Amino acid sequence: MTDKQILLLPGPTPVPPRVALAMARPAINHRGPEFSELLHTVTQGLKRVFKTNNDVVILTASGTGGMEAAVANLLSPGDKALVVTVGVFGERFVKIAQRFGVETEVLAFPYGQAADPAAVAERLARDKAGEIKAILVQHNETSTGVLNDIEAISKARGDHPALLVVDTISGLAAADLRVDEWGIDVAIAGSQKAFMVPPGLTMLSLSDRAWQAVEKCKNHRYYLDLKDARNYGLKGQTPHTPAVSLLYGLKEALAMLEEETLEKSFRRHACLRDMVRAGIKALGLEPLADDRVASPSVTAVKVPAGLKPADITVPLREKHGVVVAGGQGQVKDRVFRIGHLGYVNHMDVLSGLAALEEVLASLGVISVSGIGVAKALEVYQKFNA
Amino acid sequence: MTDKQILLLPGPTPVPPRVALAMARPAINHRGPEFSELLHTVTQGLKRVFKTNNDVVILTASGTGGMEAAVANLLSPGDKALVVTVGVFGERFVKIAQRFGVETEVLAFPYGQAADPAAVAERLARDKAGEIKAILVQHNETSTGVLNDIEAISKARGDHPALLVVDTISGLAAADLRVDEWGIDVAIAGSQKAFMVPPGLTMLSLSDRAWQAVEKCKNHRYYLDLKDARNYGLKGQTPHTPAVSLLYGLKEALAMLEEETLEKSFRRHACLRDMVRAGIKALGLEPLADDRVASPSVTAVKVPAGLKPADITVPLREKHGVVVAGGQGQVKDRVFRIGHLGYVNHMDVLSGLAALEEVLASLGVISVSGIGVAKALEVYQKFNA
Repeated sequence: MTDKQILLLPGPTPVPPRVALAMARPAINHRGPEFSELLHTVTQGLKRVFKTNNDVVILTASGTGGMEAAVANLLSPGDKALVVTVGVFGERFVKIAQRFGVETEVLAFPYGQAADPAAVAERLARDKAGEIKAILVQHNETSTGVLNDIEAISKARGDHPALLVVDTISGLAAADLRVDEWGIDVAIAGSQKAFMVPPGLTMLSLSDRAWQAVEKCKNHRYYLDLKDARNYGLKGQTPHTPAVSLLYGLKEALAMLEEETLEKSFRRHACLRDMVRAGIKALGLEPLADDRVASPSVTAVKVPAGLKPADITVPLREKHGVVVAGGQGQVKDRVFRIGHLGYVNHMDVLSGLAALEEVLASLGVISVSGIGVAKALEVYQKFNA
Repeated sequence: MTDKQILLLPGPTPVPPRVALAMARPAINHRGPEFSELLHTVTQGLKRVFKTNNDVVILTASGTGGMEAAVANLLSPGDKALVVTVGVFGERFVKIAQRFGVETEVLAFPYGQAADPAAVAERLARDKAGEIKAILVQHNETSTGVLNDIEAISKARGDHPALLVVDTISGLAAADLRVDEWGIDVAIAGSQKAFMVPPGLTMLSLSDRAWQAVEKCKNHRYYLDLKDARNYGLKGQTPHTPAVSLLYGLKEALAMLEEETLEKSFRRHACLRDMVRAGIKALGLEPLADDRVASPSVTAVKVPAGLKPADITVPLREKHGVVVAGGQGQVKDRVFRIGHLGYVNHMDVLSGLAALEEVLASLGVISVSGIGVAKALEVYQKFNA
């Protein structure tokens, strides 16, 4: 009965039944009044999650489409961007920027480490001519399970005029992000992460300075044109036919987040993170990222010597219905990833850890003792004392 | 009780309950074996609808994203395209091509008329140097309710090397399209039309000649990169997180189309078209398009002198829950549009015509006699004799 799955993925996350029901609402005219109301409600709800008074636009695309929208609408061919990378999705920013003719300077940190704000400050201080038009960086790097300190990176920018573009696709609503307070010019989110909705929507906030850059930008875009999205948004529409069913789902998910409160969502994700880390360490495994920079959304776990990620992920799925992710990029063959993001609670993590213990025992790595679950429960008790 | 709506839109169409249920399936890992099977099944089903052995790729975007993908992957800046326009979506092809640096030559036909294949043949005959790299044209023009004769346009191409790129977003599965038999290099479809699925997916078929053009194309693209889509497709994946819930819906909708059969779907849409046209003519209204080129998906209806489209569309929705579309482009203020596309049957059309008769009577244009419904029923009987 392993068709009854527990998804421990860094997205897509499980979809709550009430979100699934909301998505089954009858179709509506996306040029009619019902849609305008839906778009307005969702946009206002998103602004509260982004913690911003900036414009928020919604595009029918997955998160990578949002990353491309940020690049293609802000940066012209020949413009220079400083891309701060700590894993695969930082590298994706580099590829997108290069495909769109942007000159990229990469400030790379090793997989498993966070970006050093001091290094960003140092690089910008040397850019006396103000050649760097934008800093592209991840809030949460999904491939390594690292949370960057965006507040510190924004402070490191100081008075440098570069726009700060933050991919918070797997971060927003799981970890705090304060778009206005931290001065984030563009923040990019996705529906299938802490928002608990199936994939297909990407949401972006843009500051006034970002819109000024959009006005001047000469890069190619049509479907992902952000100015078109803003202008249609003023009349309660989208330029192109939107994924209406997903918007209904997002409206419901935003209501759920407001009921839980953002603060409690952050705390829930922090608790799950600490439970996973305590559990895997007790089972003799090591996380890729240090505790101090550990992501609340996903934990990349090093595979024991002599094993491949599939040795663990395949029996987890086939024997126990526990779906975790493999590795990506430079650590593709060295880690598997346990997601603890979105519609996931401590019970999912406890049973996932129990399954992991069984799989490791079957592989002869450890013997079954219950220690993984026990250590995770201690964390749970501490968070809920 | 006008929240009980009858959607007579040229997309999004009503979603069948079994499609809505399919979309509520639990989330899965889009990098796992369940997804590979889903993608394979859907892709094979799409090939049967496209009537092609060419590759078919699926992108998470609405139809306009598919149109952009065709332009950005086939045509480099400076390349020349012949854009055959008969309405708003033809003009959209012009805009997209221009935004991506493509030199456009527009062969425009008046709103309400179909493209003349002889004019296409004449223009290509003059292009001795083979400067025209692609012909961009709509199969079904949603803004005017006109069906172009793609088979004749393909024949008009003759031996000219231009690629034939066909937007069949609102045509496919409602009207016959034979990608292989007619030599269509790229066909672009969308989920929210005759496929009866909410918006958010666009599907493209590409011929070998189209792939050769993709290899040489220097235009900017990343999220909508078709070669990436093909390469990931070979391993049962998509390059970026796909709209999985919509793919589940599409799988179910394809099963419904196979049960109905494509031929019967074409016949159903033709019957609905003829019912609508007989009904509105009996009510003293005139379709924008001539019978010979009339679309099986949507009918643009001229608004009686002295009235605006909203005079008809607003009371239809507010009094009767019948949702039709306004005008677009050059005929924005002169037509409204009755969709008869997707999950729509003769009963929807009959009640829609009854509501239209009531609204026209309330406006003092006619008096109620039942003639619209009567004439539509005669057509229904003829089709089902």
